[in-house]
Amino acid sequence: MGKVLILYHSQTGNTKEMAGLVAAGAKKVPGMEIKCLSIKEAKPEDLLWCDGIALGAPTHMGVAPWQVVQWWTKAVGKTWRHIDGKIGCAFSSAGGWGGGSEMTVQSLLKILMNFGVLVFGATDYTGKHTTLHYGTVAAGKPKTAREKEACRRLGRRLAEWVAVLHEGRKEQSPHQAKYKRFKHN
Amino acid sequence: MGKVLILYHSQTGNTKEMAGLVAAGAKKVPGMEIKCLSIKEAKPEDLLWCDGIALGAPTHMGVAPWQVVQWWTKAVGKTWRHIDGKIGCAFSSAGGWGGGSEMTVQSLLKILMNFGVLVFGATDYTGKHTTLHYGTVAAGKPKTAREKEACRRLGRRLAEWVAVLHEGRKEQSPHQAKYKRFKHN
Amino acid sequence: MGKVLILYHSQTGNTKEMAGLVAAGAKKVPGMEIKCLSIKEAKPEDLLWCDGIALGAPTHMGVAPWQVVQWWTKAVGKTWRHIDGKIGCAFSSAGGWGGGSEMTVQSLLKILMNFGVLVFGATDYTGKHTTLHYGTVAAGKPKTAREKEACRRLGRRLAEWVAVLHEGRKEQSPHQAKYKRFKHN
Amino acid sequence: MGKVLILYHSQTGNTKEMAGLVAAGAKKVPGMEIKCLSIKEAKPEDLLWCDGIALGAPTHMGVAPWQVVQWWTKAVGKTWRHIDGKIGCAFSSAGGWGGGSEMTVQSLLKILMNFGVLVFGATDYTGKHTTLHYGTVAAGKPKTAREKEACRRLGRRLAEWVAVLHEGRKEQSPHQAKYKRFKHN
Repeated sequence: MGKVLILYHSQTGNTKEMAGLVAAGAKKVPGMEIKCLSIKEAKPEDLLWCDGIALGAPTHMGVAPWQVVQWWTKAVGKTWRHIDGKIGCAFSSAGGWGGGSEMTVQSLLKILMNFGVLVFGATDYTGKHTTLHYGTVAAGKPKTAREKEACRRLGRRLAEWVAVLHEGRKEQSPHQAKYKRFKHN
Repeated sequence: MGKVLILYHSQTGNTKEMAGLVAAGAKKVPGMEIKCLSIKEAKPEDLLWCDGIALGAPTHMGVAPWQVVQWWTKAVGKTWRHIDGKIGCAFSSAGGWGGGSEMTVQSLLKILMNFGVLVFGATDYTGKHTTLHYGTVAAGKPKTAREKEACRRLGRRLAEWVAVLHEGRKEQSPHQAKYKRFKHN
Repeated sequence: MGKVLILYHSQTGNTKEMAGLVAAGAKKVPGMEIKCLSIKEAKPEDLLWCDGIALGAPTHMGVAPWQVVQWWTKAVGKTWRHIDGKIGCAFSSAGGWGGGSEMTVQSLLKILMNFGVLVFGATDYTGKHTTLHYGTVAAGKPKTAREKEACRRLGRRLAEWVAVLHEGRKEQSPHQAKYKRFKHN
Repeated sequence: MGKVLILYHSQTGNTKEMAGLVAAGAKKVPGMEIKCLSIKEAKPEDLLWCDGIALGAPTHMGVAPWQVVQWWTKAVGKTWRHIDGKIGCAFSSAGGWGGGSEMTVQSLLKILMNFGVLVFGATDYTGKHTTLHYGTVAAGKPKTAREKEACRRLGRRLAEWVAVLHEGRKEQSPHQAKYKRFKHN
């Protein structure tokens, strides 16, 4: 069984809501074990446990929130040089469009890269003007169907790559996907 | 008279529309001379002419489009080490939210920084879920009133900083602004 | 056989020298087919051919050079949505330390991410004060033994991840490496 | 009198050493009041006090350290929307070249931009292969004369821009500099 960790920090509940949707998306790939944990619940051992990780946080000042950076700083001792080769992605909710959500996602991805994790975005569109090319972003809560699907799609893609790359289940490749990947409206 | 250059590249017309709004915003500051030029029209000398520059481009692959990078590469000889201390900002239109517009703005700002330009974003909100903390972004055309205002606000702020910092007109500081800077709905 | 493409652009020969070292590193993994091509030689079909790609370019203005962005822009038609799931990394030579090489590597990685490629850095140190946490960088040519090894290590890691993740050869994991990964002097 | 704040966080003493050099550089501009404070000493009021700020931190995981982000998060209430238009720059010491120092500088600049601060790098070279195009970086301590000068130059430039842009002392512009700005060896 592939193992997927959704690790998030939330202040207002918006990022938590995204995390739940990411987890729901990951569950669409059969044979996946999923954990969805806030940084208050998660332990460094959860990083060792998983094959793939989706890291989520609210956007604050365009960088990763201090609570998230602190969590990873404390996790270094038990995990750095032990999780190279796992697969990762990121998501963030901001106060508004243009408010730094893409840049926060980039900060989260840099943390993952620093640990040797392979990170990805998705070429998919989940509806008009809605994509997740470098991770999933939202202004406030994900509200429209296409914004919610962008969260689910991120989790699904993560689970797909875990299945394909860690387990050799090539039939799970998005190139074989039966669902619509490039819906523009 | 302060001098403001809006320098843009547009493929579909979306970024051009943003550029026009940025220019309109800059015009709200009295005593400003404004040029709004595409990279097909602009010359390196226009960089030397201006006190402030707003650089705009469509988002493509999350980086500055090659036409824009090429324009600046060709401009190096006449302008590098001659425009340090000017003031700059950036804007971009992407195919969708999450499509890399903030990251493209970051690439544009890095080009400006490389030339010694001081770059800024704005703390302002122009409506619910709409801000320009690191520059102005849009998915497609700016459509709502608040998205259009985020373009105008960027140009206005640029002209304000030119007035305050290059001309010593402290009364133009946004801290003295009569208009509403933090409208949330 | 796993397939690794080193795709580079070079102006002064520095990045070309890095590319050669990256290729030499990739060859250390048995059963790998390697192509090392400049963007003048490479075709979009080479992207379809490979399992892993190392993308290299000189640092100019802190962003990806226009020639590289142009090459990828032209490649979009034949390759976008066809290379999701491949593995990628990046390298860059700058005029000096602090000159934007890490940021150029980030721009190159964003292009790869835009195409759905999974990107990585390495936790390894190849000597005192020399690492490749987000890709390999150099000021001018790679000169010291540890700088050259940082190039080779990037290529080797790329080939290792191709072997492990695309071919299921788990014995090639860096976690099993016989060579010294964390040499500090 | 112009007012310059050097605000830093240091773990090993390396960034503290950089901070001292940045302060020494700022002092070369006449008529400048300088404060050099660690985040343990500094208060939000120090942000209100200054005209220009150099923000420094060690590189850790390629992002701004949690202690720095936490400091700014706590400062938001008293300072956000009150320091727009000040001038800023950043510096960082990493464990090694390629270790994320440029990216950490970018994270620090994003925090400043979020507060409406105008940020800059310098076109200067302080010796062969040593520049500060987006801020000053070091691997470990700044060791060579040119690396130390890159720290001083950042502080000097900050004080120069404060003098020119906030005080109208145009004779302090780097375009009028008597010192050598582009020494290549």
